Amino acid sequence: MSHNPRLRHPKFREKLMSAEDAAMLIAPGAVIGMSGFTGSGYPKAVPQALAKRIEDEHAAGRPFKVSIWTGASTGPELDGALAKADGIEFRLPYNSDPIARERINSGQMQYFDMHLSQVAPMAWMGFLGKLDTAVIEISGVTEDGALIPSSSIGNNKTWLEQADKIILEVNRWQSDALDGMHDIYYGTALPPHRVPIPLIKPDDRIGQAHFNVDPDKIVAVVETDGPDRNAPFSPPDAVAEAIAAHIIDFLENEVKQGRIPRGLLPLQSGVGNVPNAVMAGLIEAPFDQMTAFTEVIQDGMLDMIEAGSLRMASATAFSLSPEKAEYFNDNAQFFRDKLIMRPQEISNHPELVRRLGCIAMNGLIEADIYGNVNSTQVMGSRIQNGIGGSGDFARNGYVSIFMTPSVAKGGKISAIVPMAAHVDHIAQDVQVIVTEQGLADLRGLSPRQRAEKIITNCAHPAYRDMLRDYYERAKKGSFGGHAPNLLGEALSWHERFVQSRSMLPD
Amino acid sequence: MSHNPRLRHPKFREKLMSAEDAAMLIAPGAVIGMSGFTGSGYPKAVPQALAKRIEDEHAAGRPFKVSIWTGASTGPELDGALAKADGIEFRLPYNSDPIARERINSGQMQYFDMHLSQVAPMAWMGFLGKLDTAVIEISGVTEDGALIPSSSIGNNKTWLEQADKIILEVNRWQSDALDGMHDIYYGTALPPHRVPIPLIKPDDRIGQAHFNVDPDKIVAVVETDGPDRNAPFSPPDAVAEAIAAHIIDFLENEVKQGRIPRGLLPLQSGVGNVPNAVMAGLIEAPFDQMTAFTEVIQDGMLDMIEAGSLRMASATAFSLSPEKAEYFNDNAQFFRDKLIMRPQEISNHPELVRRLGCIAMNGLIEADIYGNVNSTQVMGSRIQNGIGGSGDFARNGYVSIFMTPSVAKGGKISAIVPMAAHVDHIAQDVQVIVTEQGLADLRGLSPRQRAEKIITNCAHPAYRDMLRDYYERAKKGSFGGHAPNLLGEALSWHERFVQSRSMLPD
Repeated sequence: MSHNPRLRHPKFREKLMSAEDAAMLIAPGAVIGMSGFTGSGYPKAVPQALAKRIEDEHAAGRPFKVSIWTGASTGPELDGALAKADGIEFRLPYNSDPIARERINSGQMQYFDMHLSQVAPMAWMGFLGKLDTAVIEISGVTEDGALIPSSSIGNNKTWLEQADKIILEVNRWQSDALDGMHDIYYGTALPPHRVPIPLIKPDDRIGQAHFNVDPDKIVAVVETDGPDRNAPFSPPDAVAEAIAAHIIDFLENEVKQGRIPRGLLPLQSGVGNVPNAVMAGLIEAPFDQMTAFTEVIQDGMLDMIEAGSLRMASATAFSLSPEKAEYFNDNAQFFRDKLIMRPQEISNHPELVRRLGCIAMNGLIEADIYGNVNSTQVMGSRIQNGIGGSGDFARNGYVSIFMTPSVAKGGKISAIVPMAAHVDHIAQDVQVIVTEQGLADLRGLSPRQRAEKIITNCAHPAYRDMLRDYYERAKKGSFGGHAPNLLGEALSWHERFVQSRSMLPD
Repeated sequence: MSHNPRLRHPKFREKLMSAEDAAMLIAPGAVIGMSGFTGSGYPKAVPQALAKRIEDEHAAGRPFKVSIWTGASTGPELDGALAKADGIEFRLPYNSDPIARERINSGQMQYFDMHLSQVAPMAWMGFLGKLDTAVIEISGVTEDGALIPSSSIGNNKTWLEQADKIILEVNRWQSDALDGMHDIYYGTALPPHRVPIPLIKPDDRIGQAHFNVDPDKIVAVVETDGPDRNAPFSPPDAVAEAIAAHIIDFLENEVKQGRIPRGLLPLQSGVGNVPNAVMAGLIEAPFDQMTAFTEVIQDGMLDMIEAGSLRMASATAFSLSPEKAEYFNDNAQFFRDKLIMRPQEISNHPELVRRLGCIAMNGLIEADIYGNVNSTQVMGSRIQNGIGGSGDFARNGYVSIFMTPSVAKGGKISAIVPMAAHVDHIAQDVQVIVTEQGLADLRGLSPRQRAEKIITNCAHPAYRDMLRDYYERAKKGSFGGHAPNLLGEALSWHERFVQSRSMLPD
């Protein structure tokens, strides 16, 4: 038995075992709540051992599948390994793993794509069924037997409370300095017992640094030493920089109009290269003492903090490049009082997003000419990742910005289409659409006014005339004239892509 | 000059004038905030005088249009008269007037269909432009010069604060006993100055009974004596009763499972005959001491209060039948301590809807087999009314129920379709769909699992096999298999209806 200095309570040392032995404690059909949010803080050993066990069982002709609930996306050692083993029957609330994505889109895995703020409440309400087992990565155990969270919080508080048995992974790769950065709020309840959440600034600490846990539910503790997924970011390209510049112009004008302070309002930003470019642009922008109230801390936010433009960030997880993750671990003392990590129920809570007036910036797959956004289902049917927290922020923030390059696949897909083939952000929740072509400020506009702006400002020139032609003919031939559409043609661009792999006509 | 006992402050009596004179104070191009929510508490004389003035100007060849902001729908004396005069350039946030609807759908009137909780904040944020004039129906003025609200609150607090000049209509038809029923919260602010809203039960009073007003902004006071629109309700038919029975079964099971108390959670209900049938059914159901936290008080809620099954209701407006409106006026003393009327920013506030865990019950035009709901745009383009507050409640409540007869137009339109031709409630916000055929509990289900339930439980038999056939073929021929769709066929039912006025094949 090791003397892991991260395990400062004897009861937890008694439960030390191998990942393989821990995986034996999980039965076929189990419903498992795992840690993990955007590739950080997910368990790395037990899921792989479980995948191996499932493969062996399948090889022996015995069925073995489980249901997996997490915070959001995880890493290849979890979703990838278990999906490859064909071991996942049901998955919620978010996935970005490519192997799992294929399983979902081939109908072999059931996937419930949820608003991230609603996972914990719906689990508590009993809407999702019974949770058997929690598998949670932590960075340590205190002398008092409380759990020091890892690099994401996600739904861990809820899984620890709801599961009958708990498997812990103690990952020594995670920085010691994470301890104290977390703020776990224990004031949630089910209606009719809910009260106001006492947070009025992104900086407010309203909870405790560690998770409570019933030690009698701990069935295994597994030691690990491995990095988070930490996907690399590409450096911003000209398209991402143009999008960032349009957004910064827009925000500068909001400040100039006196609508928001010079420090803006708390920023929420989706994950990816374009949001990262926006963060880079914000460093140069004339805004002071900004804050973030968001899901994920990316490279760009750490740069903003170092540059002094961002005062602090509140999130539920890290999502760093490998280099930045090392850099953070080496400099965690500098960052630790400028970052607060919360349960995703709190980081994404509609009450708080509305109160704080977040500036919501999220990506999209396509928007239609009326401003309805599809951010999840390619060609209306193929899930890409999931809605994640975008719905929590887009409906409740100060302003909801959706950003995208105007074309994809080398120009063969237009991000602006006559009708979105799937909608997950309705026009009412989309105030600004921005591409490298320009920005459409849709606030206070009717559908026809929105169409004019989106086509003119956002569409790629290769598609602009086609969109205008559709819109003009729709105004004449539509059943109703509020948001004119030609039903026989509205999805024809998608059909063309499916048939010829291009939305452009021959 | 009259001695109207409702005007208990001399300054207001000085401004008494005719509606015609008051209408002369409104200039072409004015942006006017009017009172009114679901046909109650809207100004009745000045809009008609303004419409007459606009008609005269048009007859003289002079252009004259205005922009109209309200709480929600109003009555024929407002939207009807002004739309008939072709006097409305732009309208928000909700309309149900048939003449205005035609103008919108013919492209002659711009209509911004908004989440009702967002109107006041967006007006304050300056997203909607500058408000020139408020035209507000009140039921009286106190000795101190405060305004006693009428039968709806809507956005009146905001219009009174934001407008440069104010025209009041004092309607003596409204019951004296309204005084004291209102609860006007003055604690809202813009970010970064927002704080928790101190309401934890539907019963809580957090504001004051009267509107503050700057007397120097009052430019006219007009006396009226006319009823609200008060559309009659049809008695529940067998279809409505069947829908109500399914919902009550569902709620009984929620209680039995221990998920909600015997008094349920605060009810929110859309307006119409089916919701009214649900209210009637709830009187007989074994639930005690229910409450409502909703937009509108309908006939059924007054019946529930009289029967003792509903302890109290919080709303922003009445929407009563003519008989029930008279009955209420005659019995207002009985009802007045059981009803609280609030600004719609509060009645619909996401923070409060989430905290209270409302049971949200709203109507729909169509739902697709995956549970995406279209509640506004017939055949994807023709606006019916608007999203109203349904988005405020559906995303944030305890459970979001959408209800509809399974067919419309004598069976020629199916309420369950392969793909919704417009979406305003995404599948994530739709937990239950119910028709007279049955109820589909969609909580925790993947799109494919949802499709099975919706087709089996909710579709009308005339369309059920067609839906199943579509779904089975979509599983084989779809681009992606998460939510299978056939792009060339997904909207074909709507196309068929537009061409032949029936979704049924020949």
